Amino acid sequence: MSQHENRQSRAAAPATGRVGILGGGQLARMSAEAAVELGVSVVVLDPEPGSPAGQVTRQIVAGWTDECALENLAREIDVVTLENEFVDPRALEILIRHGVKARPSLPSFTIVRDKLVQKQHLAAHGLPVGPFTEASSANDVRRFAARHDWPVVLKARSHGYDGRGVAVARNAGELESAMQLLGSGARSLLVEAQIAFEAELATMVVRGIRGEIACYPVVETVQAGFVCALVRAPAAIPTEVAARARDTAVRAVEAIDGAGVHGVEMFLTQSGEVVVNEIAPRPHNSGHYTIEACATSQFENHLRAVLGWPLGPTDMRVPAAVMVNVLATRSGSAAALDAAVLRAPRDLQAKIHLYGKRELRPGRKMGHVTALGSTLREAEKHATSMLEALDV
Amino acid sequence: MSQHENRQSRAAAPATGRVGILGGGQLARMSAEAAVELGVSVVVLDPEPGSPAGQVTRQIVAGWTDECALENLAREIDVVTLENEFVDPRALEILIRHGVKARPSLPSFTIVRDKLVQKQHLAAHGLPVGPFTEASSANDVRRFAARHDWPVVLKARSHGYDGRGVAVARNAGELESAMQLLGSGARSLLVEAQIAFEAELATMVVRGIRGEIACYPVVETVQAGFVCALVRAPAAIPTEVAARARDTAVRAVEAIDGAGVHGVEMFLTQSGEVVVNEIAPRPHNSGHYTIEACATSQFENHLRAVLGWPLGPTDMRVPAAVMVNVLATRSGSAAALDAAVLRAPRDLQAKIHLYGKRELRPGRKMGHVTALGSTLREAEKHATSMLEALDV
Repeated sequence: MSQHENRQSRAAAPATGRVGILGGGQLARMSAEAAVELGVSVVVLDPEPGSPAGQVTRQIVAGWTDECALENLAREIDVVTLENEFVDPRALEILIRHGVKARPSLPSFTIVRDKLVQKQHLAAHGLPVGPFTEASSANDVRRFAARHDWPVVLKARSHGYDGRGVAVARNAGELESAMQLLGSGARSLLVEAQIAFEAELATMVVRGIRGEIACYPVVETVQAGFVCALVRAPAAIPTEVAARARDTAVRAVEAIDGAGVHGVEMFLTQSGEVVVNEIAPRPHNSGHYTIEACATSQFENHLRAVLGWPLGPTDMRVPAAVMVNVLATRSGSAAALDAAVLRAPRDLQAKIHLYGKRELRPGRKMGHVTALGSTLREAEKHATSMLEALDV
Repeated sequence: MSQHENRQSRAAAPATGRVGILGGGQLARMSAEAAVELGVSVVVLDPEPGSPAGQVTRQIVAGWTDECALENLAREIDVVTLENEFVDPRALEILIRHGVKARPSLPSFTIVRDKLVQKQHLAAHGLPVGPFTEASSANDVRRFAARHDWPVVLKARSHGYDGRGVAVARNAGELESAMQLLGSGARSLLVEAQIAFEAELATMVVRGIRGEIACYPVVETVQAGFVCALVRAPAAIPTEVAARARDTAVRAVEAIDGAGVHGVEMFLTQSGEVVVNEIAPRPHNSGHYTIEACATSQFENHLRAVLGWPLGPTDMRVPAAVMVNVLATRSGSAAALDAAVLRAPRDLQAKIHLYGKRELRPGRKMGHVTALGSTLREAEKHATSMLEALDV
């Protein structure tokens, strides 16, 4: 074969998947890791230089709506997805105008990124959700509480995560400070009745671009101060409840016409109901356990889904898995943590993942540990003893 | 903290590891995959655009001795390593001149890349090797055969791999054609007596920059036409033999003052001796099984070693693992293989890795399958049935 022919035949070969991710945090970083084995190239856009993902894959350092940067990004990718909901929808608009396929789609993202609009949309589509309302003033909240009782949960409609943009008012006296915490006044808030739950559940729902669905096992999440601290997979709940939660989660993702992986957070109420709390249109902290515990990780399946490739099987390959987040407890350099992880023992049971964040800040997610076991109790023991050994 | 202070403290933080790899094939690709989780950035240099590694990490497309490209590469990396022995040593020289640390070092690489010099060096350091000589003519070979008998193995001193650059002459009548196959005349050859072996063994030896050693289990390799077809880990040999093989391999790597991972190929002779065949100063096909089967993969340990980081534990986490190469049996597009792998069943037992090569060529390594089991027999069954299902 002549060199010319050889060059031709290579040009004619199908292109590898080229995916852009808006946001360069740990979710993009773990997606980039999954991408390597799939032969998918990943470019992230993030305003912060040296982002967790930017350390390991190509990063364009620019603001979300930097026209020029987005035009450059468009040349390098076929599909764009995102790893957080802080992205300005105009970024998707610009990329779409330059021929990039947005997954999630712009309409879907527009619904999901506004927590109030998302909840209204889910309710309108018959999904079970707890009592909620829009509140533009303290009076609106008081009226809601008069009907549904205190405490109430106040949520900023966008830009909230890991406890930011969320405040609880246990009574009328706490309302003022809770609203101040959320920067009240600028925009209306989402107000919810605090659900008396038996357990917090979550599942990852993958939806392909032709509507095909793959759903991961239902897990139990344990929050500490609105931050996910621990995930038990599968949740220790009756099969019937798990089936109902899966069904609810799938219907929720279909209602928003999602594409890719979605983390669906739910409550199992004390009366045995399953209600939807929130949907995140991306890989999710409650699905990190899938890297070690499932046939296909949530990150790989997200890439498969947004590329229009066949979805991978989602079944667990072990009886039980527990994930605990590595949360910083103080401020300072993360160098000691990095060193501790490099020297940590390695067994089949517990695996540490670090996100490459250089600075500790109290409560900051620095990484996570996933442990496997023949029972949840055993996996949890492995996970927590590994976490203690790290001494963050 | 003001923005200014914040920027300062980020600048003062220790840099992430930045590694350059000369060569963009599957070994660089799997190294890039291991790099993501370590937070190590990888840039590969390879003359072929869209190389297996270049699909998933940054690639500089240039010849091995392109001064300008190497200068650019030097700006992006702290340490350079390699994934094949075809690299021109001048590439290392140029990078060293620009302040990059070369691992392996230039003297070590210069010894290893020339199979004759390597063997002379090992013999001079008291390592057990089979009978060999330098041959500049057919007469030299005949003289060697008169002493050690036919068949003899002729090897090009450099640029050989997977059976290229190797020819066997079973008798004097086959000598002429064997020498022609290797392009005789240009340069002297390495000539070896063909060893009557009980088994071909290999082990991966990791050597840190302070001389610290981590050694993987001894495995058995099964070759077909000088191409590694199957690896059984651990080798089913007496403990005493395995210990001797490990010891020999470690001494061989120390003799060449290696840095990083080395694949050490050995023969277990019919009289029970262990002799060294060849050392490759890089991750090696016989160590791919470590990705699933060992506490630290050979790729991660190679990066740790060349960066001067602590080496990870090398023990197997399962009783047995078998790796089989996915070798193309025909020519054509690899698209059907890609699709088959995306749809292949996934179980804990067998894992397929593809290298992103777009074109099948008979005998070409397209990927590999590693299977785990409680016995070698079980693992081999999983591996071969997965391979058959792929129908390459």
